[in-house]
Amino acid sequence: MTVIASRNPRLGEIAENVDSATSKSEVAALVEKAAAAATQLAAMTPIARGNLLRKMADALGAQREFLIEIADRESAIGPERLNGELTRTIGQLQLFADVLEDGHCFEVVIDHANAAKTPPQPDLRRMLTAVGPVAVFGASNFPFAFSAAGGDTASALAAGCPVLLKVHGSHPRLDTEVAKILQNVCVNEDLPAETIGWVYGREAGTALVQHPQVQAVGFTGSETAGRLMMDLAAARESPIPVYAEMGSLNPVVISPGIVTGETTDDVARGVAGSVTLAHGQLCTKPGLVFVPSGPAGDAFVSTLHDCMSTQQPQYMLSVGTRDGYRDNVQKVHQSSGVRSILGAEDPEGPGSQGAVALAEVSAAQLREDSSMLIECFGPATLIIRYTDEDDFDSAFRTLPNSLTTTVHAQESEVSLLKKVQALGTAKSGRLVFNGFPTGVAVTWSQHHGGPYPASSTSMHTSVGATAIRRFQRPNTYQSWPDELLPEHLQENNPLGLPRRVNGVQLTAGQPAIIPANG
Amino acid sequence: MTVIASRNPRLGEIAENVDSATSKSEVAALVEKAAAAATQLAAMTPIARGNLLRKMADALGAQREFLIEIADRESAIGPERLNGELTRTIGQLQLFADVLEDGHCFEVVIDHANAAKTPPQPDLRRMLTAVGPVAVFGASNFPFAFSAAGGDTASALAAGCPVLLKVHGSHPRLDTEVAKILQNVCVNEDLPAETIGWVYGREAGTALVQHPQVQAVGFTGSETAGRLMMDLAAARESPIPVYAEMGSLNPVVISPGIVTGETTDDVARGVAGSVTLAHGQLCTKPGLVFVPSGPAGDAFVSTLHDCMSTQQPQYMLSVGTRDGYRDNVQKVHQSSGVRSILGAEDPEGPGSQGAVALAEVSAAQLREDSSMLIECFGPATLIIRYTDEDDFDSAFRTLPNSLTTTVHAQESEVSLLKKVQALGTAKSGRLVFNGFPTGVAVTWSQHHGGPYPASSTSMHTSVGATAIRRFQRPNTYQSWPDELLPEHLQENNPLGLPRRVNGVQLTAGQPAIIPANG
Repeated sequence: MTVIASRNPRLGEIAENVDSATSKSEVAALVEKAAAAATQLAAMTPIARGNLLRKMADALGAQREFLIEIADRESAIGPERLNGELTRTIGQLQLFADVLEDGHCFEVVIDHANAAKTPPQPDLRRMLTAVGPVAVFGASNFPFAFSAAGGDTASALAAGCPVLLKVHGSHPRLDTEVAKILQNVCVNEDLPAETIGWVYGREAGTALVQHPQVQAVGFTGSETAGRLMMDLAAARESPIPVYAEMGSLNPVVISPGIVTGETTDDVARGVAGSVTLAHGQLCTKPGLVFVPSGPAGDAFVSTLHDCMSTQQPQYMLSVGTRDGYRDNVQKVHQSSGVRSILGAEDPEGPGSQGAVALAEVSAAQLREDSSMLIECFGPATLIIRYTDEDDFDSAFRTLPNSLTTTVHAQESEVSLLKKVQALGTAKSGRLVFNGFPTGVAVTWSQHHGGPYPASSTSMHTSVGATAIRRFQRPNTYQSWPDELLPEHLQENNPLGLPRRVNGVQLTAGQPAIIPANG
Repeated sequence: MTVIASRNPRLGEIAENVDSATSKSEVAALVEKAAAAATQLAAMTPIARGNLLRKMADALGAQREFLIEIADRESAIGPERLNGELTRTIGQLQLFADVLEDGHCFEVVIDHANAAKTPPQPDLRRMLTAVGPVAVFGASNFPFAFSAAGGDTASALAAGCPVLLKVHGSHPRLDTEVAKILQNVCVNEDLPAETIGWVYGREAGTALVQHPQVQAVGFTGSETAGRLMMDLAAARESPIPVYAEMGSLNPVVISPGIVTGETTDDVARGVAGSVTLAHGQLCTKPGLVFVPSGPAGDAFVSTLHDCMSTQQPQYMLSVGTRDGYRDNVQKVHQSSGVRSILGAEDPEGPGSQGAVALAEVSAAQLREDSSMLIECFGPATLIIRYTDEDDFDSAFRTLPNSLTTTVHAQESEVSLLKKVQALGTAKSGRLVFNGFPTGVAVTWSQHHGGPYPASSTSMHTSVGATAIRRFQRPNTYQSWPDELLPEHLQENNPLGLPRRVNGVQLTAGQPAIIPANG
């Protein structure tokens, strides 16, 4: 029986054994229980389900010290960032409670019967409901915010879907403790314990994706693993959506007006800070920096180099992460036409330590051979030097899609900004002006996703209020007796939801009963 | 070179040669031109794109007689139904103009910068934009409403996506003429002609789905062909969504209270009418009818039989459709435990004529072996006799998913209604009370889709206002200069769109500028 071990990246050693791998038949039993539990969760009123999420948020907050100690031991992220991340995770659960209380997420649409139409139109009432059990695969780099109680879990529960968590191999103890906390809240709220389930081991993860009663998958991780999930899900007898947030190079464009302007050193320092934040282990880390050629650009690169070179090697999320990072950095630095500036030698250190890396290539070289465009998950970036806007434009077109595109420019550099806007909106989900892509605010307006391979589908976000839509599907009732309708759809609007009635969108405060048109 | 022939199903002969199959390189050239045309279509204001759709609607209406003559020759549907279908198609284009003018479809969300938050929140503005070129595969049974200018095309154009039509093999002349009309409207509105493209032949269809610049597929047809599209799209280097509306059995449940009540004969006549409407060639045709066992149920079946047996063989959409229908009817009628009532013999006739078919099986037999659950695309249905609610419930659970579930019952039969509601919402997209599933109203509230294999994804509809969401993806702008933002997102709201600002959903009429919160 495979043992699930918790490792300490600072020591590179096993700290404890957490559990053993879940068998395929155990996975099937868990999924069937989750499917049986789905009805009760889906039937809760929006307010009640919002309260459930708020209680989960409170329960996590109440165990803050206990959880952060485990998370730090398993991830080496350090208590300060972990504290911030747990606060963010609590906020995410609360945001989805807000989303439920707001009520637009049910997309209630009512068209009254209209005998005057040809053919006569029956009474039709549409709402979004829960898709059913959702499998969640968390990330190594956000043991709270993109893991057991992270955005996928919060949005799936908000939609009314039981969650089956694949415990992450790099923080199995934390995932287990967090899942137990969520499960306890469910039991205290008289929901079935199986509203939250969790499994251990890679094969159990595969079994989850393949189980006929799992209806959707949320995933955050590498492109390789994400594509594997997508292919598994597409090959099912009954295919399901996989919402995978995967690889991203996150290009940052520095304009001629910046490198010749007063802020050039501040921007260079900012880029270095964004590249090395969380030791570069962020999906939105700037992996490419376009810098003008010429002396002013040289000075920008020099400042960027100076800022990065002072950073000591730090512990990465795991020894495996560090090894993969080092391999990829070496591939980039050994690519044809690439000039290695920092980190060409093996960054050595105890445990999972890894060092910063910086290299440079010309836009012309990139156009000729783009094989150096490899995501290095760690504190590395690649500078691309361009001669003019056309040189920039044609090089940028060779890039794969990303979560974000960023530009630092003067507002007067309209021609360049329009180029970045056209290319960046086509190739990524979020466009940043004079800022940095790292730091993904959890808001109503956020979009954290992009065209493949940034995400499995460009249509959805894994962060922000609209993430709930991934786990909902419509049902329309035709001429159904009012008293048997879900409360969301009943004529007198007992839940006080915003609705579109006979084509007109009404807010929650507007009168509940609208005369039929026609 | 493969010739694309237009056939006359009444004669079973080739009426004319329309064109030749499009080569792979011609497909690639068309897609690239469509991709180049995408920017201009996507950049139109909502009102301007709505006007484009209204002009397309007018242009089709202006050619009514010409188009209906061709459609009738190619489909044998008859002028009366085709007139209604063209009117519906015109209405669909107009509905999406309404959707654009309403403006909620852009899902504009604005969160102002908020320095008081930890970490400080930048200004973020989200909207939905066009995904890019969309491939549309129409249906044989709706040569207007689900074909060249049908719901997929209307919703893709509304979203701002150029359309690449795979001309349908059973109505190639009509698709060609309709596509030309749409293209002419584009040219008259100063859009590139390539906003509308069309290709001939199965290999060209495959090439469309595989082309890297095609971003989504709309499909209506058989489960076999739909799954082929899904598999092709999932195997791409960059997978894309396929919105396929496919097979559906559309169970209809007749309650004990109906067969013992005053309306039993009316309901039986209604079922017969729904099964034979359009000679059964509708995706929502009732393919299964649950009827209580016992004498009252026997009488219901007898009335149903009487109504159906008076119907003469009619021309079906093509000889191939008739042959496929006859093969499937025979499979059902020869299944173990199935009693053939009508149509066991070969329905013979000239051209594409096919005859009605009716058979009966017990719920107990269905539970034992469900191999008779085959969609027969034509005027056939299978009666399932059940003894009580448990017998019904356990048999219903064996059914595949459908577009619709229908129940005829007294309102007082609450227990049965609740069972149908629980099962029907899980297994289908639309739930019908005391009505018939055929006749899919084109409204804001419609949902025409269901869990696989009714649709490729249960999340989306192919009919109704929300179909537009299939061809949109979000973009979020962070701290972007206001004057460079799309007008949809500019602070002073020049397009007058409904927006959510700082968490509060505002209607179009509410003040445009809202003070930042915090």
